[in-house]
Amino acid sequence: MEGDSRSFRRHYIIGEIMVSRIKLAHGGGGRETSEIIENVIKPRFKLRKIFGGVGLEELDDGASIPITEKLYGRHLVVTSDSYTVYPIFFPGGDIGKLAACGSINDLAVMGAKPIAILDTIVVEEGFPIKDFTRILDSFKQVLEKENIALLGGDFKVMPSGKLDGIVISTMGIGIADKIVTDRGLKVGDKILINGGIGEHGAAIMAAQAGLDVESSGLKSDVQPLTRVMQVALENGNVHAAKDLTRGGLASALNEFAAKNNVSIYIYEDKVPIKEEVLAYSEMLGVDPLVLACEGRVIIATPPEDAEKIVDAWRSMGFEQAEIIGEVTLERPGYVLFETLAGGIRIIEKPTGEIVPRIC
Amino acid sequence: MEGDSRSFRRHYIIGEIMVSRIKLAHGGGGRETSEIIENVIKPRFKLRKIFGGVGLEELDDGASIPITEKLYGRHLVVTSDSYTVYPIFFPGGDIGKLAACGSINDLAVMGAKPIAILDTIVVEEGFPIKDFTRILDSFKQVLEKENIALLGGDFKVMPSGKLDGIVISTMGIGIADKIVTDRGLKVGDKILINGGIGEHGAAIMAAQAGLDVESSGLKSDVQPLTRVMQVALENGNVHAAKDLTRGGLASALNEFAAKNNVSIYIYEDKVPIKEEVLAYSEMLGVDPLVLACEGRVIIATPPEDAEKIVDAWRSMGFEQAEIIGEVTLERPGYVLFETLAGGIRIIEKPTGEIVPRIC
Repeated sequence: MEGDSRSFRRHYIIGEIMVSRIKLAHGGGGRETSEIIENVIKPRFKLRKIFGGVGLEELDDGASIPITEKLYGRHLVVTSDSYTVYPIFFPGGDIGKLAACGSINDLAVMGAKPIAILDTIVVEEGFPIKDFTRILDSFKQVLEKENIALLGGDFKVMPSGKLDGIVISTMGIGIADKIVTDRGLKVGDKILINGGIGEHGAAIMAAQAGLDVESSGLKSDVQPLTRVMQVALENGNVHAAKDLTRGGLASALNEFAAKNNVSIYIYEDKVPIKEEVLAYSEMLGVDPLVLACEGRVIIATPPEDAEKIVDAWRSMGFEQAEIIGEVTLERPGYVLFETLAGGIRIIEKPTGEIVPRIC
Repeated sequence: MEGDSRSFRRHYIIGEIMVSRIKLAHGGGGRETSEIIENVIKPRFKLRKIFGGVGLEELDDGASIPITEKLYGRHLVVTSDSYTVYPIFFPGGDIGKLAACGSINDLAVMGAKPIAILDTIVVEEGFPIKDFTRILDSFKQVLEKENIALLGGDFKVMPSGKLDGIVISTMGIGIADKIVTDRGLKVGDKILINGGIGEHGAAIMAAQAGLDVESSGLKSDVQPLTRVMQVALENGNVHAAKDLTRGGLASALNEFAAKNNVSIYIYEDKVPIKEEVLAYSEMLGVDPLVLACEGRVIIATPPEDAEKIVDAWRSMGFEQAEIIGEVTLERPGYVLFETLAGGIRIIEKPTGEIVPRIC
């Protein structure tokens, strides 16, 4: 047994080329589970606790965050999401990057600075260790760049045939001085977006369809929105914010309209969209408005702050940042699009039939 | 579309007997996702925010916990786990109860009072709504009884063939005045357990093997350990605590021994085990020491507090609570069992080959 375990360890630790696969035992809660956590997962993450509490460092039953003076009067923000995507590796990212950015972005749009994450990973028996570590590395790179601690997590293995690939859930923890919600829209507010729509959804769909995506330049927009939100908050009043995920711009705008009982009036010619997204959308027969994004946010801001925020976004590299519309009282609860032809159409919350699946 | 959606809604809301199944669209992020969250998930949970923050109530991108004076100087404790089990419904519980108790227990053994949970649920396309709501109800019953808020969550659907059944991840949040770790063992401490071992693992295995479990009285011990830990803390000094999960008593004791660099000396005849667990273990050919528990904790406590805590546990209904051993320096890092025959054997951390799988 001891010999076995040692030689197994060599496969993934010392970095030989030999391919090794995850066994059911790695999720069993015994010695192999400790091994994969101690040897493969834990060492990848440098920041393993916050404020001197208990963290991944200790591998205890939970982690702790001492509530110090530094936190008093502020808000802890928490969020949880699960991630499944097919293919697991896609142009512009993979499920690891997606899982990190997803939770970070939910915190960012609440006005919080992400400080810690916990994750749970479920893989199928036989999942290649090489893919597993590649996913972990993407996850870790985002956390490292954003200075976010991994406080803990869980790792389980399902028998083959019961799961295809990998499911990751993440819980994000952030700190905010003031919460930004999705319910603060005011009539007259401008609606801003930080970049082109549908890049994540189009990249995934094109990859699923077996199209050569890389050469066209199409790739997922998956990225952390922490700085984007910070810059917005530094340059103006943010009345409401929402990151675009599944269901795309159409879904997010409809949530704004419904929750605030206002209309959102959008100028179609202002909605930024990359050439390649448009091309793939036409080829695949989907409306780019419902395509998922993973690095785009819409915010509502008073008219006087709108230009300043858009300019700030552009100068940080989001060249397609744009004022795409405004909040009116025309038809409360509805999203109205002024089309290129000059007409007006209602954009409804997308339904299953038209939302392309990304897993 | 509108008509469709209304009639669909009737199937699961007004409670007709008609069986309905979860569609891919329910996880797509569009209208169907809003419907299942607004109509099926959200109304089940009464406590939807804490301390006046943002919670499930608002269905925003995240939830918030205002850090008030009440929290200052204390510790926030967080934990995350994923749950897969086969069968999903088993004697004594189901995956919903398991997911709630699992996170609660990780918080409880850290000395925290659980106050909030977030969950992520991934189901396969075609999963029966009837089973889904039954699982949600089990989950909710635990939260309600324990006065724990559901702050938020996520719901996704995987195409059939990619997932068999359901995977739930939960993130628990608790508050502690003082953290209890698994690293506070002192030589001379007594090791206590609150009840018989292996009931969860034996029940699952017997159900997997198609044995008639119900009639024998065998059922999972899955339950929240909040009160058990509270009572221990009120009746003595708790130097360390750990709930037994996968890998059972053998795994937990080995973690105590390894992390604290002490030996744990256990009197085999003192380890409580129900007749039916013993019978099924023999029938199934597994060592009950490695069978999973979901409602058992081991704690280390000074000798003078041990009897008092065990008595308190017994009078709250845990009749099999027992002092099962002590902390020595005989062979640091090892768990030693004094067998019924009088010999001593080393109990190692179980490995994959002998840990029965429960999913």
